[in-house]
Amino acid sequence: MERTHPQTIAFIGLGQMGLGMAARLIEGDFSLTVYNRTTARAEPLVAQGAHVAAQAADAVEPGGIAISMLADDAAAEALFDDALLSRLGPGGVHLSMSTLSPATVTRLAARHTAHGVAYVACPVFGRPDAARAGKLWLCYAGPADVRPRLEPLLNVLGQGVRDFGEDPAAANVTKLAGNFLIASAIEAMSEAYALAEKHGVDAEQVHQLLSQTLFACPIYQNYGNAIVAQRFTPPGFTLRLGAKDMRLVQDAARTAEVPMPLASLLGDRFLRMLATGQGDIDWTGIAADQRASSGLT
Amino acid sequence: MERTHPQTIAFIGLGQMGLGMAARLIEGDFSLTVYNRTTARAEPLVAQGAHVAAQAADAVEPGGIAISMLADDAAAEALFDDALLSRLGPGGVHLSMSTLSPATVTRLAARHTAHGVAYVACPVFGRPDAARAGKLWLCYAGPADVRPRLEPLLNVLGQGVRDFGEDPAAANVTKLAGNFLIASAIEAMSEAYALAEKHGVDAEQVHQLLSQTLFACPIYQNYGNAIVAQRFTPPGFTLRLGAKDMRLVQDAARTAEVPMPLASLLGDRFLRMLATGQGDIDWTGIAADQRASSGLT
Amino acid sequence: MERTHPQTIAFIGLGQMGLGMAARLIEGDFSLTVYNRTTARAEPLVAQGAHVAAQAADAVEPGGIAISMLADDAAAEALFDDALLSRLGPGGVHLSMSTLSPATVTRLAARHTAHGVAYVACPVFGRPDAARAGKLWLCYAGPADVRPRLEPLLNVLGQGVRDFGEDPAAANVTKLAGNFLIASAIEAMSEAYALAEKHGVDAEQVHQLLSQTLFACPIYQNYGNAIVAQRFTPPGFTLRLGAKDMRLVQDAARTAEVPMPLASLLGDRFLRMLATGQGDIDWTGIAADQRASSGLT
Amino acid sequence: MERTHPQTIAFIGLGQMGLGMAARLIEGDFSLTVYNRTTARAEPLVAQGAHVAAQAADAVEPGGIAISMLADDAAAEALFDDALLSRLGPGGVHLSMSTLSPATVTRLAARHTAHGVAYVACPVFGRPDAARAGKLWLCYAGPADVRPRLEPLLNVLGQGVRDFGEDPAAANVTKLAGNFLIASAIEAMSEAYALAEKHGVDAEQVHQLLSQTLFACPIYQNYGNAIVAQRFTPPGFTLRLGAKDMRLVQDAARTAEVPMPLASLLGDRFLRMLATGQGDIDWTGIAADQRASSGLT
Repeated sequence: MERTHPQTIAFIGLGQMGLGMAARLIEGDFSLTVYNRTTARAEPLVAQGAHVAAQAADAVEPGGIAISMLADDAAAEALFDDALLSRLGPGGVHLSMSTLSPATVTRLAARHTAHGVAYVACPVFGRPDAARAGKLWLCYAGPADVRPRLEPLLNVLGQGVRDFGEDPAAANVTKLAGNFLIASAIEAMSEAYALAEKHGVDAEQVHQLLSQTLFACPIYQNYGNAIVAQRFTPPGFTLRLGAKDMRLVQDAARTAEVPMPLASLLGDRFLRMLATGQGDIDWTGIAADQRASSGLT
Repeated sequence: MERTHPQTIAFIGLGQMGLGMAARLIEGDFSLTVYNRTTARAEPLVAQGAHVAAQAADAVEPGGIAISMLADDAAAEALFDDALLSRLGPGGVHLSMSTLSPATVTRLAARHTAHGVAYVACPVFGRPDAARAGKLWLCYAGPADVRPRLEPLLNVLGQGVRDFGEDPAAANVTKLAGNFLIASAIEAMSEAYALAEKHGVDAEQVHQLLSQTLFACPIYQNYGNAIVAQRFTPPGFTLRLGAKDMRLVQDAARTAEVPMPLASLLGDRFLRMLATGQGDIDWTGIAADQRASSGLT
Repeated sequence: MERTHPQTIAFIGLGQMGLGMAARLIEGDFSLTVYNRTTARAEPLVAQGAHVAAQAADAVEPGGIAISMLADDAAAEALFDDALLSRLGPGGVHLSMSTLSPATVTRLAARHTAHGVAYVACPVFGRPDAARAGKLWLCYAGPADVRPRLEPLLNVLGQGVRDFGEDPAAANVTKLAGNFLIASAIEAMSEAYALAEKHGVDAEQVHQLLSQTLFACPIYQNYGNAIVAQRFTPPGFTLRLGAKDMRLVQDAARTAEVPMPLASLLGDRFLRMLATGQGDIDWTGIAADQRASSGLT
Repeated sequence: MERTHPQTIAFIGLGQMGLGMAARLIEGDFSLTVYNRTTARAEPLVAQGAHVAAQAADAVEPGGIAISMLADDAAAEALFDDALLSRLGPGGVHLSMSTLSPATVTRLAARHTAHGVAYVACPVFGRPDAARAGKLWLCYAGPADVRPRLEPLLNVLGQGVRDFGEDPAAANVTKLAGNFLIASAIEAMSEAYALAEKHGVDAEQVHQLLSQTLFACPIYQNYGNAIVAQRFTPPGFTLRLGAKDMRLVQDAARTAEVPMPLASLLGDRFLRMLATGQGDIDWTGIAADQRASSGLT
């Protein structure tokens, strides 16, 4: 039987998000060669028909498409090195979907350009279940001329794509702004519901009212439900990853000289949670710290 | 022609919100006697058929219903004094819709009880246009037995009523929690969009993405639009009133021993804006202060 | 044998500070009639020769001098009521040494004036051992004409007196400013020494260097020693009292529209400590909270 | 005439501090070869007898001593590169007196070791006038065996040396802790004195009281005098440099997972001042920002 999409795509990085996205692509009839530092993570994809590469550079093909979903800046800089990029070479495209710092993205994009590879930043909003279901929101920024070639992939991965122009860093600034808004909403609900509870008011009732009226949107509904239910495991997105993103926000604020007192407050909140051994729960776990600070048990 | 609702209702407090609510009630075929410190404010209502009382106590009738929408705790405590309450007397009901501190509400409710008057706390969410259109969200708490009698009024004023039990203070805690969430969202957007702008990213595009997906709800859409348009006048809700509410939040946090770092941050933000003469713009004007602090002009 | 100071002085309020000050005055050959809500606290003073009054008003004499050292604004307002003041009457002087809010002081002073009593604000700096040894620092503000009459008392109680003019509230603003500086220094050392310790650097060495050079002054030396030794009991000044003072600072900041982000940070720190049951240790115990937040054990 | 100290010392970095230190050393009869990116800065030293090197590597001698006083981590990493270190070589000692991040120091020390060069961290406390007068406080950490050889230099530069062991990073952590305490004291005084002033109390009187009693130490006296006099130029230490140090503090806090809310608050204060074009005044200028935020003019 013929594949709808004949070309093989390299998919690099199989964390919770990457795994779901890769599975979704295979279901969408794309042929994938995957790479992950820990190869065992690829097993479910192999069962779906994916090939596995022993090295990241082996996954890519000259002039082909590579997608990456990596944990941090360091991983992106290490894997997309000169060796990989010279193999990917002219005509190659890197669809970089990780949450990275704008400064790193600018540096990476220049390195890609030097090898004739197009660097497209396309960070995503959504948790692992949305990744698996192709319901992500995508922030695209990079060379406009390669977008048609990527369109079939984007359509399978997301429920919508927004374009932020040709400068890849712009998409990552947008992603950081979004994650900052999410963390801020978690902080605000954590404080508000602790206040209600200590005044003897049912926090769930308060939450129902607000999240069905003024704040009737996914972030308040989904995260708020977890907060009032005190359900912080299994994590959809860990505090440790949240802490990393808050550092990226704070670094971007420094670079641009933007005082962000709420980002600073969140940075300290996350640091306390890491220091006290709570890095592996979901980032809505901010509410657990707020409850403890309020003497609620 | 017969009125649908034969009894006259006292309506006390004709600020931006009160004026809209009173007009809405008259349209809903209720007969009102209104009171406001500055009588001239009542003129449009008189044109609609309302009576005007020279004193608050003159507006109420023994065993009747009084609605109040006042600026602060001090006004509520001053107007609903023993003289007014003894006139309202047994069988009387006070539907208190102002944003007041839970501590004041508890004190007021006791004073009402001593006169045989039912105190119902029913603070509202919504701006003046929602008040005028009967599209408020209502937080009801107080004696359950008087609710049927109030139902026709509530139906005309709001698009929905939530019940928070018999303790009136619970409704006011809920209202403060809600206003705190709103102010937090304004702060978060103000910081995020300044970050985007200083990185050369179009803040409006970032806002459109986020407010149509993860944050697709009235607060982010309406307030966010004002923020990216830098449209802070005329005010729907002034910074001065926001500062007052944040003080009530902070006082409630103290009383209950709940550290609320985000509320503290907002408290200082509002204080700076009052100190620098910006108290009369809309509270989305936080964004103007954030822009100035970021060196954006 | 003749007393050096023939007139009997009323001394009201026998907390840790008041007890030391009263003992010091008796040693300085003053005759005291003391009052405390819990009479048993007066026993050591009775052994020194003091009389005990059953009611505060009984302690004062027409035209005499009353000294007070009370826990909070509420106690001062309750005890110095019209009954006591009408007994103290014209020619009477109240040397009010408690830490009170400027707003309360202004209200109290007016009440005194109505009875012909001079209100002198004279809050103090120093811990109980300094009170007992007559080594307090005194902030005087009030009618200048009564100061000569108070001079012998002031000389026995303090090692120095500063005059802040005729408006009593000025002395209390100064006292709050001072306590705020102290709490700020405790916070700063707590954070700095936790940083050093987590980097494997001996916090005591860091403290010795800094407190013997740039910060060679009593607050850094005494409080810093307690911090590095983690010695928070017995308290010289409890966190609960510190929390009260921080509230007074924050209230004074609101009234005057002065954003004080560091005071807000301290307010939240204190609230967390109260909420988690640490209100009765010394206020240097902020360092214990900082250590816990840093994962130090 | 014979020099007391026959060996020539390399002195690298002639900012405000470095210039004063170098002049002091020449007066102390040390022979210097100096290097600065902008050679013209060396002129007053040449007049005192110093030699000037065109490149940093030309200033050092095999097995000799190099002293550096540089603006930031980047300068230290760039100048003390493999070329310079291979020339300095075995038996060489680098007395590194700049304020650097602990992480950079650890990396630099390893690079020195690889070339057989001893890396001694010795950051200093004191402003340019103290540098010129040999009145600095020195924080020494590094190989103990080279200290005797450095002793004559240390004695001329400082009024005291504290030893923080063999790990060079420890001295830099101590320096950061100290600068953080200084910035915290400036912040605290700025807020306290604005509070006093807006309550109509003379801030200078408050400052005199506190800085002559509880806070009778150089930092409160010197910086406090500048604050109450609103004398922020010429700068002894610019806000821009303070901002850099606060970033180092915040980075060290992240690395060690220590939430430092006061450091975060200062970080945002500094960012606002940079963003609004106030980076070149003295860092006591925090008080100017506090006054503006308080509506004081």
